[in-house]
Amino acid sequence: MAQRMSLDQIGVGAGKKGRLHRILFRHGLSNGTAIFLPYDQGLEHGPRDFFANPAASDPRYIIKLALEGGFNGIAIQIGLAEKFYWDFAGEVPLILKLNGKTEIPSDAEALSPLHASVADAVRLGADAVGYTLYVGTPAQEADFAQLRQVRADAHAFGMPLVVWAYPRGAAIDAKGGKDSFYAVDYAARTASELGADVVKVNFPHPDKRMGVAAAYDAEFSTQQAVDAVVRSANRTLVLISGGERAGDDAMLEKARQSMEAGATGLIFGRNVWQRDHDESLRFVARLRDILAKYPSA
Amino acid sequence: MAQRMSLDQIGVGAGKKGRLHRILFRHGLSNGTAIFLPYDQGLEHGPRDFFANPAASDPRYIIKLALEGGFNGIAIQIGLAEKFYWDFAGEVPLILKLNGKTEIPSDAEALSPLHASVADAVRLGADAVGYTLYVGTPAQEADFAQLRQVRADAHAFGMPLVVWAYPRGAAIDAKGGKDSFYAVDYAARTASELGADVVKVNFPHPDKRMGVAAAYDAEFSTQQAVDAVVRSANRTLVLISGGERAGDDAMLEKARQSMEAGATGLIFGRNVWQRDHDESLRFVARLRDILAKYPSA
Amino acid sequence: MAQRMSLDQIGVGAGKKGRLHRILFRHGLSNGTAIFLPYDQGLEHGPRDFFANPAASDPRYIIKLALEGGFNGIAIQIGLAEKFYWDFAGEVPLILKLNGKTEIPSDAEALSPLHASVADAVRLGADAVGYTLYVGTPAQEADFAQLRQVRADAHAFGMPLVVWAYPRGAAIDAKGGKDSFYAVDYAARTASELGADVVKVNFPHPDKRMGVAAAYDAEFSTQQAVDAVVRSANRTLVLISGGERAGDDAMLEKARQSMEAGATGLIFGRNVWQRDHDESLRFVARLRDILAKYPSA
Amino acid sequence: MAQRMSLDQIGVGAGKKGRLHRILFRHGLSNGTAIFLPYDQGLEHGPRDFFANPAASDPRYIIKLALEGGFNGIAIQIGLAEKFYWDFAGEVPLILKLNGKTEIPSDAEALSPLHASVADAVRLGADAVGYTLYVGTPAQEADFAQLRQVRADAHAFGMPLVVWAYPRGAAIDAKGGKDSFYAVDYAARTASELGADVVKVNFPHPDKRMGVAAAYDAEFSTQQAVDAVVRSANRTLVLISGGERAGDDAMLEKARQSMEAGATGLIFGRNVWQRDHDESLRFVARLRDILAKYPSA
Amino acid sequence: MAQRMSLDQIGVGAGKKGRLHRILFRHGLSNGTAIFLPYDQGLEHGPRDFFANPAASDPRYIIKLALEGGFNGIAIQIGLAEKFYWDFAGEVPLILKLNGKTEIPSDAEALSPLHASVADAVRLGADAVGYTLYVGTPAQEADFAQLRQVRADAHAFGMPLVVWAYPRGAAIDAKGGKDSFYAVDYAARTASELGADVVKVNFPHPDKRMGVAAAYDAEFSTQQAVDAVVRSANRTLVLISGGERAGDDAMLEKARQSMEAGATGLIFGRNVWQRDHDESLRFVARLRDILAKYPSA
Repeated sequence: MAQRMSLDQIGVGAGKKGRLHRILFRHGLSNGTAIFLPYDQGLEHGPRDFFANPAASDPRYIIKLALEGGFNGIAIQIGLAEKFYWDFAGEVPLILKLNGKTEIPSDAEALSPLHASVADAVRLGADAVGYTLYVGTPAQEADFAQLRQVRADAHAFGMPLVVWAYPRGAAIDAKGGKDSFYAVDYAARTASELGADVVKVNFPHPDKRMGVAAAYDAEFSTQQAVDAVVRSANRTLVLISGGERAGDDAMLEKARQSMEAGATGLIFGRNVWQRDHDESLRFVARLRDILAKYPSA
Repeated sequence: MAQRMSLDQIGVGAGKKGRLHRILFRHGLSNGTAIFLPYDQGLEHGPRDFFANPAASDPRYIIKLALEGGFNGIAIQIGLAEKFYWDFAGEVPLILKLNGKTEIPSDAEALSPLHASVADAVRLGADAVGYTLYVGTPAQEADFAQLRQVRADAHAFGMPLVVWAYPRGAAIDAKGGKDSFYAVDYAARTASELGADVVKVNFPHPDKRMGVAAAYDAEFSTQQAVDAVVRSANRTLVLISGGERAGDDAMLEKARQSMEAGATGLIFGRNVWQRDHDESLRFVARLRDILAKYPSA
Repeated sequence: MAQRMSLDQIGVGAGKKGRLHRILFRHGLSNGTAIFLPYDQGLEHGPRDFFANPAASDPRYIIKLALEGGFNGIAIQIGLAEKFYWDFAGEVPLILKLNGKTEIPSDAEALSPLHASVADAVRLGADAVGYTLYVGTPAQEADFAQLRQVRADAHAFGMPLVVWAYPRGAAIDAKGGKDSFYAVDYAARTASELGADVVKVNFPHPDKRMGVAAAYDAEFSTQQAVDAVVRSANRTLVLISGGERAGDDAMLEKARQSMEAGATGLIFGRNVWQRDHDESLRFVARLRDILAKYPSA
Repeated sequence: MAQRMSLDQIGVGAGKKGRLHRILFRHGLSNGTAIFLPYDQGLEHGPRDFFANPAASDPRYIIKLALEGGFNGIAIQIGLAEKFYWDFAGEVPLILKLNGKTEIPSDAEALSPLHASVADAVRLGADAVGYTLYVGTPAQEADFAQLRQVRADAHAFGMPLVVWAYPRGAAIDAKGGKDSFYAVDYAARTASELGADVVKVNFPHPDKRMGVAAAYDAEFSTQQAVDAVVRSANRTLVLISGGERAGDDAMLEKARQSMEAGATGLIFGRNVWQRDHDESLRFVARLRDILAKYPSA
Repeated sequence: MAQRMSLDQIGVGAGKKGRLHRILFRHGLSNGTAIFLPYDQGLEHGPRDFFANPAASDPRYIIKLALEGGFNGIAIQIGLAEKFYWDFAGEVPLILKLNGKTEIPSDAEALSPLHASVADAVRLGADAVGYTLYVGTPAQEADFAQLRQVRADAHAFGMPLVVWAYPRGAAIDAKGGKDSFYAVDYAARTASELGADVVKVNFPHPDKRMGVAAAYDAEFSTQQAVDAVVRSANRTLVLISGGERAGDDAMLEKARQSMEAGATGLIFGRNVWQRDHDESLRFVARLRDILAKYPSA
């Protein structure tokens, strides 16, 4: 089992360290691990994601679920944060998601435009900001320019920066796709090189080998792949994402392998709230059982 | 019947709340509902929209009509606001429309460029600003960047932000079109996620199902559709638009269903002023009769 | 005969009103009408326009002609204003043209880039600024962004804004062309909606009906067309342009119809200076005779 | 023989006038004429231009040559100015070239990007700045925007602005090419209209008539052509460029015709330094002999 | 053997000179030569570069190697600098790499976007900044604009500017490729003209002649080529890059030829760390033996 990063090692100042400490040691299991509830799908996919459980359409329901489930934070966009977070301020940490997009136009030159600022996050009492970086997109010039400003502002305000590192765009599709070990590994490293404090990646698929860089065109177990991804992120804390809803046992095994690899935690959205309320809490309890086995100093 | 949002719930500060209160409780029926008169068609469509009733070409005629008809506000562009609003200042609320475009070039990558600022609105004594967001356009990067600045300025000045949330662009055309339930529902949610205080949408058409997301490819009544749209807007106040002139009874039924769904009000332009003066007032009276049945606390 | 706008009605503050008063009542016929001499063709078309009368190549010749002919103002670009206007400062009003382009590259996505600022105009003692807006161009996003800044600066400095409203671009070519009644009418309205104090349009051609909006595909006299254009401009003062050199009697009839429609004046360049000096003055005298018949309060 | 412009006539303030006076009356022949040495070819063409005389690869050799040859100024880019000019500061005027590009990518949409500022020129003790304007390029929007800022800064700092007015781009190639009388004449006028104090043009070729504007499709002598070009520049001082190395007698005849037309001087680079040191000085002496015949008041 | 540049000659002020002095005379061999360890491959190529020696995936391992090997500096991106450099601050100079990109999208219009600022470098205690310039790219407008700002900031902060001058893009591929003598020579000159203090180039290949400028289509030895490249950089200090891992003897011979030509030093990454730890140090020792033979005053 890999060593999880300690907050003393990662080169952050007092503001970022204090906020990360609050997230990791004052919420959730308070053991240095984390589970986050992302709720940006209303923008990213539209209301269609809520048809499976219409109650999930209501942001108030979701924030309350995060509280009941003992999450370490909720990740939402500026509009919902303004309208709903005041009700729960201080009870569950807010990760203000700063960019996002609809899924309607083509993803070939994907870019997730900013719609809020780090200053908005400070004003709303957030404990971190989130930024989606489309690794490998032809629009990387604009993407890096946006991220540079967010990184600089986050540094100035002592606000932890969580990067959603998503391989995306026409070239990625031609080189193994967005979930390949190659793509996820590259994405984790890119976030680290560009200054993320925390990186969110999808679970890597070492079997997606069509078109990947030669080094990745070999047999790797999923454990080997996720180990490598966490290593590539080096001193950037890693969150593994649940992605689309899938079978519970498979999801839990991925969660276990991720923590075994040294990830700091999980970020599960649709797998949690695309089911009935009590079932959601039962599934979260199983995720927490896993996290409880990987306490951090 | 759904519950209409109260101004205490929606997370706005004193400036926005005071201005919304003025619009909703000091003008029109003063019962928390609203009917707005939009008059941006001279730019959006050109003078051709005034051939049906040449008097409507004169902005003074229109503002006076808003006053006579007991509207809660008039939505116009900067040029007309500068030249005509001073005459009626204080008598009817001004929603300064901040962006707009001509219909001449192609709409495939629709973007509505800014031509005025929130500071202009403050200077002119406006009670809200309007912004057209083309949901789903390939130009969403530029659109979000514009909206981000408008949202930040509106927050800084305590100025309510009304978003015209219009599905538009080549991808929308291929996925059910701009009036489909799918597109309107996504648009309402997008405006809410990005920080609109009020959202204007077109009435949804659940029968337009060609190419829509799978969840929307089923039988829905128009009442079910408009209920869902208002739910998707959550704490963003909803205005339903009249669109192109159509039969009165059909329009009134849409208005009734909208209010039943929990919308805050209506925004009717061509359906009002593309007819003779007295007939316009008679039609508005029928709309007011509907609003009177849905008072808000 | 339509009523000409009075400066009391158009919603401008002291700076703009004072400068417009100076142009309309202290120069030219001093009767509230105006005739301007535009001299931007050296940039817009190149020196080829001066082959008909080589003396016209010299900006000093032209400014002197404006003085001799009793013009209400001369419209030139920053370079010529810097080099030549100091000689005649105060004697004839300066309209500093802020944007322009060469005719060499394609006009399909026409945009006229800025090359001077409103502050330059203030520094040079100008009484107005000029901006070319290409109505209907695919580049309308950049065009509106430029105009927004110019409008804001003109407001801040109390400087009247004259918009050259020119239909242009591939879509206009496909919808009746740049001189059609449809295009000119839309252009006049657009300038008014976007905040022009004065709009310069070409004389409308109601017979150009191929591809225009349905409302314009009918029989209109030229008088009806120019009446409609002036109405579309509402409280924006209208100047009708002479365009390419044409037969004198036809030009004078257009001038008469324009004034009859309620235009404030004329803007004639090549029709004036593409002939011998004395002949130029004789032609201007005939234009002044027309203006003298339409005094404004 | 045409009259050369006097510095009293051209509308410049004390800073620009003083610096131009220093260039024209305190260096070179000190008679109001000028010969400049341009040395931007290392960037524009790459080191290939130095193979004919490898010594010319060394910027120190070139600046010394300018001194020995009695030039009125040396035009170089920021990098060479920083590294080499301090050695000769005050001995020969510096024209800091503010933009430039490599010849490697296509010229179809030519734009010469800025790499230095007018403030850099002030700091380095330059007496003028140089800007390359690609007249007729499809990128004219970006080009005019760059030039506008340079012009404004040059005005603010009293720094003379020398515009390299080069017809370029796909449309120019289709309309007679970059050296045609039509293109050069248009370029000279454009620089003047946009605010150049001095314009550098290539010698016009009236025989290149394929595709030019109709007025230029006639018989003109080279003297007539260069006369017209100087006239088109009006109060902008004209420098005629040597261009690629060519036969000496032909070059000298062009120089003579240029001065006869009223040009202020010459700008000769490769024709000077693409030969042996002493031969360079002999050729410059012959150019100076011509300039000596055209003193200015 | 060519003369190496002295820091007194190159026109830099106290801040840049002091930092260059520290790099060249207080670290490494302290004899005025330099060997740098670049470690930007995790971003530029992704983690695939670390499969040959997995330990090299850890930035801490690499910085320690730079210390053990007696390097004059380590070049890393902002993210790794923030997380790892504090551990070694002051022990080995930091060159903060300010831009970079992934290799995933097409290189046809290559641009390396900024992700950090010169101010970040100052804050982190760096002794230089690095910027990748893609010489010959169709995106040169954006590239020059970025570099201009970096150069200006580096001047303002007295921070030496190291330019990675890489020929790149579709036009380069068609004109001899990125390693041709023609391309490398042009790149060195371009960096010098645009204001680099130090330039990093690849070793030139005079045998790649397909499509190059005529002057380069001749027989040159590699020593002649590298001599010319150092001459083209004139007063810009030259670092020759190792590039992809290749045979040791060939690499050492290139290093020797480079120093013979007057280069200031070497920059070797993959050739160093894509092997076992002790082997890395043995190879570095051989490079140092070469540098020891070329001390600078």
